[in-house]
Amino acid sequence: MASQDLPEQTLEQMLAEIRRGTDEIILEEDLRRKLQTGRPLRIKAGFDPTAPDLHFGHTVLINKLRQFQDMGHQVVFLIGDFTGMIGDPSGKSATRPPLTREQVKANAETYKEQVFKILDPAKTEVRFNSEWMDVLGVAEMIKLAGQYTVARMLERDDFDKRYKSNQPIAIHEFLYPLIQGYDSVALEADVEFGGTDQKFNLLMGRTLQKHYGQVPQVCITVPILEGLDGVQKMSKSLGNYIGVTDAPGEMFRKLLSVPDELVWRYFELLSLRSLEEVAALRAQVDAGMSPQEAKKQLAQELITRFHDAAAAEAAPRSAGNQIGLGDIPENVPEVEVPLGEDGELLLPQLLRLAGLVKNGAAARDVLDRGAVYIDGAQADRGHRFARGDEHVIQAGKKKIARVRVV
Amino acid sequence: MASQDLPEQTLEQMLAEIRRGTDEIILEEDLRRKLQTGRPLRIKAGFDPTAPDLHFGHTVLINKLRQFQDMGHQVVFLIGDFTGMIGDPSGKSATRPPLTREQVKANAETYKEQVFKILDPAKTEVRFNSEWMDVLGVAEMIKLAGQYTVARMLERDDFDKRYKSNQPIAIHEFLYPLIQGYDSVALEADVEFGGTDQKFNLLMGRTLQKHYGQVPQVCITVPILEGLDGVQKMSKSLGNYIGVTDAPGEMFRKLLSVPDELVWRYFELLSLRSLEEVAALRAQVDAGMSPQEAKKQLAQELITRFHDAAAAEAAPRSAGNQIGLGDIPENVPEVEVPLGEDGELLLPQLLRLAGLVKNGAAARDVLDRGAVYIDGAQADRGHRFARGDEHVIQAGKKKIARVRVV
Repeated sequence: MASQDLPEQTLEQMLAEIRRGTDEIILEEDLRRKLQTGRPLRIKAGFDPTAPDLHFGHTVLINKLRQFQDMGHQVVFLIGDFTGMIGDPSGKSATRPPLTREQVKANAETYKEQVFKILDPAKTEVRFNSEWMDVLGVAEMIKLAGQYTVARMLERDDFDKRYKSNQPIAIHEFLYPLIQGYDSVALEADVEFGGTDQKFNLLMGRTLQKHYGQVPQVCITVPILEGLDGVQKMSKSLGNYIGVTDAPGEMFRKLLSVPDELVWRYFELLSLRSLEEVAALRAQVDAGMSPQEAKKQLAQELITRFHDAAAAEAAPRSAGNQIGLGDIPENVPEVEVPLGEDGELLLPQLLRLAGLVKNGAAARDVLDRGAVYIDGAQADRGHRFARGDEHVIQAGKKKIARVRVV
Repeated sequence: MASQDLPEQTLEQMLAEIRRGTDEIILEEDLRRKLQTGRPLRIKAGFDPTAPDLHFGHTVLINKLRQFQDMGHQVVFLIGDFTGMIGDPSGKSATRPPLTREQVKANAETYKEQVFKILDPAKTEVRFNSEWMDVLGVAEMIKLAGQYTVARMLERDDFDKRYKSNQPIAIHEFLYPLIQGYDSVALEADVEFGGTDQKFNLLMGRTLQKHYGQVPQVCITVPILEGLDGVQKMSKSLGNYIGVTDAPGEMFRKLLSVPDELVWRYFELLSLRSLEEVAALRAQVDAGMSPQEAKKQLAQELITRFHDAAAAEAAPRSAGNQIGLGDIPENVPEVEVPLGEDGELLLPQLLRLAGLVKNGAAARDVLDRGAVYIDGAQADRGHRFARGDEHVIQAGKKKIARVRVV
């Protein structure tokens, strides 16, 4: 009894598509049953209100959400602002000050700008869990807490490790998984997506939905994407990430820097190309094509998605990219600097005035390293400029400008 | 800087009185400091909203509250209705249905009737923790829960035992001590009283008050009173209790039934006589006086407190007391029963009509045991009554009445 809006795919085809790039589906038979109803399902994914700068690691999941939208389902993009506005109640972490309602709103706007590069706004509900948590009341919270035992909560991996190694666990930390579970009740979620590290919390939704008489949600975990190093998970704090708002040139540079083997993992989880196409590309590399070529193709797809085709085309030579010392790329930004009152300008001064270094110390540093180039040739640190001089000046691998002395 | 309302006692005298019949004072130096301010202190004690039938075990604590009132302080009699109105959220216990607001109110009235036999109503505030818990909100509850760790909570005796023996502890049980502690914050309690088994929860009040910037309360524990058997704690469910609403005769009978040694413990914790007087009485018993005499003196004091002096006087012979089979006590209640239509009345019928047995089966039972007496003589079960007959009829050791056939 499929609804008319659903694309005419068989259930098995749908399930095969859903399985790609996922880690676990709990339970697949529940999902099958929900898909069979033909009604648009409510697909929930929760996001941290403090970190609206998404990186490619997050897009693995968002791509899956998009896939459900393409099948006619409704995505609920949940911002967990309720706990974010509490901050760290144990006062242990000075780095987690409570968010204000204004910050939450601003962060939500930033999220929207970013996720709507992938998601269809018409099939996306952006929600905040403060909507229901602010009015839930302690009595209902106690009832929630009565649905779960201390021993089972301590089975969660991180709690287990901390408890056994005598690291303190504040009691409110036991309430957060319950709140995440209750969010599914409030949203009547049919499916919840999360990283593999979220499995415990996703299952809490099933437990609590059953208690509230709802059909329990299907929990789908997606793998954690490795960062640029190919070893640790992609994360802001490790610096091994590509942000969805990174400049085209930066995306390009970062994608080309990954270990050769990692590119296939990225193709699997970040590309929308079919697995057959990817396999064909891999065969070409195995037959002798440079892996850099595969990376460039991936970069082109991803830069097109987050910027546009022209940016993807220009990326390899754009200013955000690293510049070989002495290379002069296209599109060098232009800047004018004033001549001094004494009618001349020395190189360190010019570097500062043109914004190529922050201060005198940085100017000395880059000059000491021999990393200053004028029109593609290593600069003499004693170089003097006169009015009307115009040169492409490079300071290190990232800063370059066409400077005119006025 | 003693206030004018305070009796002129030295601090040391006060402390000595406070120490009597207590188990622990945490911390005595804090109490000293609070007493020195001379202001009326707020003395909190919490009571379960489900069990308004107080027994003598509860009065150990209530006597101490009265003592603080006599020193000019204010008692806050707190009824923990908030959690009572939730019931058992884990649904494990069918015997703990949630209380309604009406039941809570009715129970509070019953409490008042009972505790005002001891407490001064003018210095007693009866409060319900739903006042502040209904409006606290989950966010504030989370902040409370952030003040305490799972490991420290698991140190509480009963949790520790249950956790180690794999008995489930539902997570809401971790919230109840936090709520009890927060009650002290809401009430700005200076002192909280509880049984020794409440020590952990009382200390929670100190922890949370500090967090809220209050001077932490002094926690005073009082011993758990042994029941009539002298071994297990006095409790309704063990049946070894004396209720404060028990009839004078029943109090008398129960007090006279306790093991001889227990009477001194009861004198210490239940009597308001000075310790010197009690020691003198004990010396008399050691010198040969019957321990029953000491028990009678205690019974007289306690029956006078919970009823009046006349009831205490009459108690040994009152109808509520057990009656030796064939004895005819004073004050036998009078009852009239109608003659049957056939002009006669058989003994089993009369027992029923006079309310001496509940039904025909109970009548047969008491007759089979030979425990029915008419005017002090064992009855013939075939006895027939006629209009105008008047006899003292006894059915078992507790039921007796002067019955007139009309």
